[in-house]
This record gives sequence, C-alpha cells and structure tokens, in this order.
Amino acid sequence: MAGLSVHSVLVTGANRGIGLGLVQHFLRMPKPPQWIFAGCRDPKGQRAQELQNLASKHPNIINIPLEVSDPASIKAAAAKVGEHLGGSGLNLLINNAGIAKLKSLDMETLEDMSEVYTTNTIGPLLMAQAFLPLLKKAAQGSPGSGLSCSKAAIINISSIAGSISSFFGWDMVQATSYRCSKAALNMLSKCQSLAYKEHGILCVALHPGWVQTDLGPPTTVDDSVQGMLKVLSTLSEKETGTFLDWEGNVIPW
Amino acid sequence: MAGLSVHSVLVTGANRGIGLGLVQHFLRMPKPPQWIFAGCRDPKGQRAQELQNLASKHPNIINIPLEVSDPASIKAAAAKVGEHLGGSGLNLLINNAGIAKLKSLDMETLEDMSEVYTTNTIGPLLMAQAFLPLLKKAAQGSPGSGLSCSKAAIINISSIAGSISSFFGWDMVQATSYRCSKAALNMLSKCQSLAYKEHGILCVALHPGWVQTDLGPPTTVDDSVQGMLKVLSTLSEKETGTFLDWEGNVIPW
Ligand SMILES: NC(=O)c1ccc[n+]([C@@H]2O[C@H](COP(=O)([O-])OP(=O)(O)OC[C@H]3O[C@@H](n4cnc5c(N)ncnc54)[C@H](OP(=O)(O)O)[C@@H]3O)[C@@H](O)[C@H]2O)c1
Ligand SMILES: NC(=O)c1ccc[n+]([C@@H]2O[C@H](COP(=O)([O-])OP(=O)(O)OC[C@H]3O[C@@H](n4cnc5c(N)ncnc54)[C@H](OP(=O)(O)O)[C@@H]3O)[C@@H](O)[C@H]2O)c1
Repeated sequence: MAGLSVHSVLVTGANRGIGLGLVQHFLRMPKPPQWIFAGCRDPKGQRAQELQNLASKHPNIINIPLEVSDPASIKAAAAKVGEHLGGSGLNLLINNAGIAKLKSLDMETLEDMSEVYTTNTIGPLLMAQAFLPLLKKAAQGSPGSGLSCSKAAIINISSIAGSISSFFGWDMVQATSYRCSKAALNMLSKCQSLAYKEHGILCVALHPGWVQTDLGPPTTVDDSVQGMLKVLSTLSEKETGTFLDWEGNVIPW
Repeated sequence: MAGLSVHSVLVTGANRGIGLGLVQHFLRMPKPPQWIFAGCRDPKGQRAQELQNLASKHPNIINIPLEVSDPASIKAAAAKVGEHLGGSGLNLLINNAGIAKLKSLDMETLEDMSEVYTTNTIGPLLMAQAFLPLLKKAAQGSPGSGLSCSKAAIINISSIAGSISSFFGWDMVQATSYRCSKAALNMLSKCQSLAYKEHGILCVALHPGWVQTDLGPPTTVDDSVQGMLKVLSTLSEKETGTFLDWEGNVIPW
C-alpha cells in the first residue's frame, strides 16, 4: 500500500463488516489519513460499539451520522465533513454501505426492490453529488494531471453478483433485487467516471470478494480489505470507469 | 414474420409510441393473434384515443387498465386477462411501458431515480410474476421442447443506453436514472431467463432502435416494430437471456 497516501477518506457503513475493516486498515497504514470519516447510521448504537472504541483511541476517526437513503442526512454529513476539513478537500469517498435480500425471484416484492435500490444505487449517487465540491477541492489541491486515489476518487463497492456476464452464484442465491441494484451501481460508476473526469476524480466499481457470509467465507474481511487497498493504490486514469475485483482483475459487465 | 404465430399477446404501454406500433403490426399479420391485450394506464383517456379507435374496429384487441408500478393494478389485469383466455395461456408478454428523465447527473434526484426504476425495472419484474401462471400454461400447451416466442416468452423492451460497454449517446443525453434502470432491466432479463427456462419460457432484453425522439428519428416506429417482430420470430433457446437490438444484433452488457 506504499502508493496510497490520502489526507482524508470517508467510508459509508463503517460500523461493521467490510466498512469497519477499511477503517481499521487505514489506521494501520504507515502514513494513516489525517481524517477518517466513518459514516454510520446509528453511531451511538449497539452495532457501532467497535467503531466507538476505535474512535476513542484514534482522534483521526470522526464518526459521522449517515443514512445513505436520506438526502437530508447526506447533506448534513457533507456539511459536517466540510467543517472538519476546514479549507481542504476530501480525497476518497468509499460508498460501501449496502444491503441484500436473499430471496428467490418469485418472492421479490416492490418494497424490497425499492429498498435495495435506494440503499445500494441511489445512495452512492446522492453521496457523490453531495461530496462533489469537497472531492473537486481535493483534486484541485493535488499536483499532477492524472487521476489517482491519492488525489480524488469515488469507489463504489459493488459485487460480482452485479455482473450480467459472469452471473456468479445463481444456483446458491438468486437475490434479484441485489443483482439489479449492483448492475445499476456499475452503470452509475461508469456515468460518474465520465461526468467527473474533467474534475480530476477517478471512479470505479469494486468487488470486495466473497466475504464471510453464511454461505461460507472464502475470503476474510482482512484479506479483502488489504487486497482492495492495494488495488486502490495502483489505480490511474486508465482504470477510471472500470469494474475490478479485490485482486485487481477486470470483471466484465 | 412468417415464423411468429401467437394465440395471445399482452403489450404494456400500448396506447402510444412503440407499444401502439406493436399492436398495429400484430393486427396486420397474416395470422393475427386471437387476443391482443393492450395494457394502458388510462384506457378511456385522451392519450388512448387511437387505441380506442383501433379496438372499436378489431374485436381481438382488449384494452386492459394497467399501471405497471402498482401491484394491485397488475394483479387485477392478470385476473382480467385470465378470464378472457378461459382455460388457455398467454404466449407473449411484452414489457414495453417505460419512462425517461433526460437530466444531467448533477440534477438527478432520489424521487426521479425511484420513479424511473419502479416503472422500468420493478414493473417488468412484477408483471412477469403475475402473468407467470398464464405463461406457464401457454408453454405447457405448446408442442415441442425448445423455447420460442410462439410458445411462451417475456420480452423486456430495454435500451442500448442501458449497455455499460456501449455507453451510447452520453454526449447527447446523460439520463443516469434511465441508464441505471435499463442496466438493471438487462440483469432482470438474465435472472428471468434462468428462473423461467424450466417452465419453457424464453426471456430476452430487446433494444428497439433509436426511435423518433426529439433528438432526431433515425428509425421510425414502423421500422423498429417490424424489425423487432422479425427478430422475435427467430428466437430459440439459444437466445434466451441475451440482449438484442431490433435488427437481431447482440448488444454487449
Ligand atoms: N460480504 C460479501 O461477501 C460481499 C460481497 C460482494 C459485495 N459486498 C458489498 O460490500 C459492501 C459491504 O458489505 P458487508 O458484507 O460489509 O455488509 P454488512 O456486514 O451487512 O454491513 C453493511 C453496512 O452497511 C450499512 N448500511 C446498510 N444500509 C445502510 C443505509 N441505508 N445507510 C447507511 N448505512 C447502511 C450497515 O449499517 P447498519 O449496521 O446500521 O445496518 C453496515 O455498516 C456492500 O455494499 C456489499 O453489497 C459484500
Ligand atoms: N423511443 C426510443 O428511441 C427508445 C429507445 C430505446 C428504448 N426505448 C424503450 O421503448 C419503450 C417504449 O418507448 P416509447 O418511445 O414508445 O415511449 P413513449 O412514446 O413515451 O410511450 C411510453 C408508454 O409507456 C406507458 N407508461 C409509462 N409509464 C407507465 C406506467 N407506470 N404504467 C403503465 N404504462 C406506462 C405510457 O403510457 P401513458 O400514455 O399513460 O404515459 C406510454 O404508453 C420504453 O421502454 C423505452 O424505454 C425507446
């Protein structure tokens, strides 16, 4: 991870799972970020215990109340992050928060389809809109003309389950609402990469591996997060708008 | 179109545009369907004038009130279609109804993202669920083991704007909400193709061409619909789960 040196990062859904793993790994970097904004929908609640403990020991972690399906919450979070940063920008926005409903196609409902899409797809769109001024500021404040995660980037944590070509794991879990939301998130990532390139912001969709679910844990959170951070450190304008996995392989749409 | 011979078809959004074109072309076939169910959210309204005129002349057209974002409306429509069909099944479900909001990425809102997804993606999912018993019945009533549109099929009218690889037309129109909904609809089509194959139902995503929009009309509704119906007549189990255009070309996801 020698190559990844960010002044500030925001991770959504940072209180558990991969999000918490990201926060922990950022802390352990040789040169940790000056600001690690940990977005969390209930920062004082039971599910945020571990994050609270971490934050009490590491003053560079700032817990930010953040419900990604609520535009008002996102707006408030962006304002709060802006205050902390003073005049400087945000280097890295990691849209990690996500939900899955493991239903068969027959059992999908309008409500589930909507809820999953709102969290997994609309959330990342609204987050990028709200944090765009801070991301632009980071890009403007960085030397050089290329794109990189140390400069300014939006990382959308997607899933290989959203790859229509690969069509991973159908026999085990259909989860159509989840697959549709991640295919749409991949499309969003491509749209963002084109819209935000001129502002110096790199955008990718990133599959974290298949991590510690009830279906068996082929990849640990640690391995996944370590792999992803290594990938992030290597990204340049060549990769903006692509879909990669935690080992850096390109996944077909 | 010699190859396409359906006993019954349902088209959503049949009162204007491509949906109305489909109804008209089905009527003109050498052997028109015995039942053409024309789904329309306001069958008595101003926007359904042309469809009303057609229906008054052709007793095989049945206007069906149908709002594809409303599960209750879909359920009522399926019951009504079932009554008309008596004991027989539905051969062809064409999910054509769709909306687009031509906004730039900056201007997308939660409300627009939700509305477009509900109509363009969730609608086709709910429609297929509700009409599945009738589609199964049609498949069971057809001789032969292969898949075809004359037997039983779900055709989701998608768009090349939903192809993440092609990424058509970004410079002219961003329409991220629309692109995301169609990428998700493509994923849904793939899910449906796998889930419904065992029932003898063919499923594809179909791009109608770029048809008479304000951006200029490279394809007329007539050409598009004629092309699509020709494509439908040629489909077999080889094509189920694919994404095709109105000329039969495969579009990459
Ligand atoms: N685990 C895997 O194998 C795997 C594979 C592919 C992709 N992914 C993706 O990786 C990301 C993280 O997954 P994970 O396994 O770490 O999931 P997880 O353990 O279930 O954690 C999900 C996180 O997202 C948060 N979250 C959910 N909805 C939210 C909302 N509306 N607003 C704010 N935060 C919200 C949760 O907060 P609460 O604690 O408040 O619920 C939690 O912090 C997801 O995008 C997932 O789709 C995971
Ligand atoms: N035109 C093109 O160039 C083009 C290109 C690619 C893909 N497509 C796709 O082709 C399909 C048809 O497009 P079009 O150009 O014919 O569009 P259109 O002229 O705007 O007609 C849309 C039809 O969908 C109906 N509809 C919309 N929302 C509905 C809902 N919630 N419930 C029921 N019906 C609803 C409309 O009914 P009302 O009259 O009540 O509004 C209308 O009948 C769409 O899926 C579109 O995305 C079109």
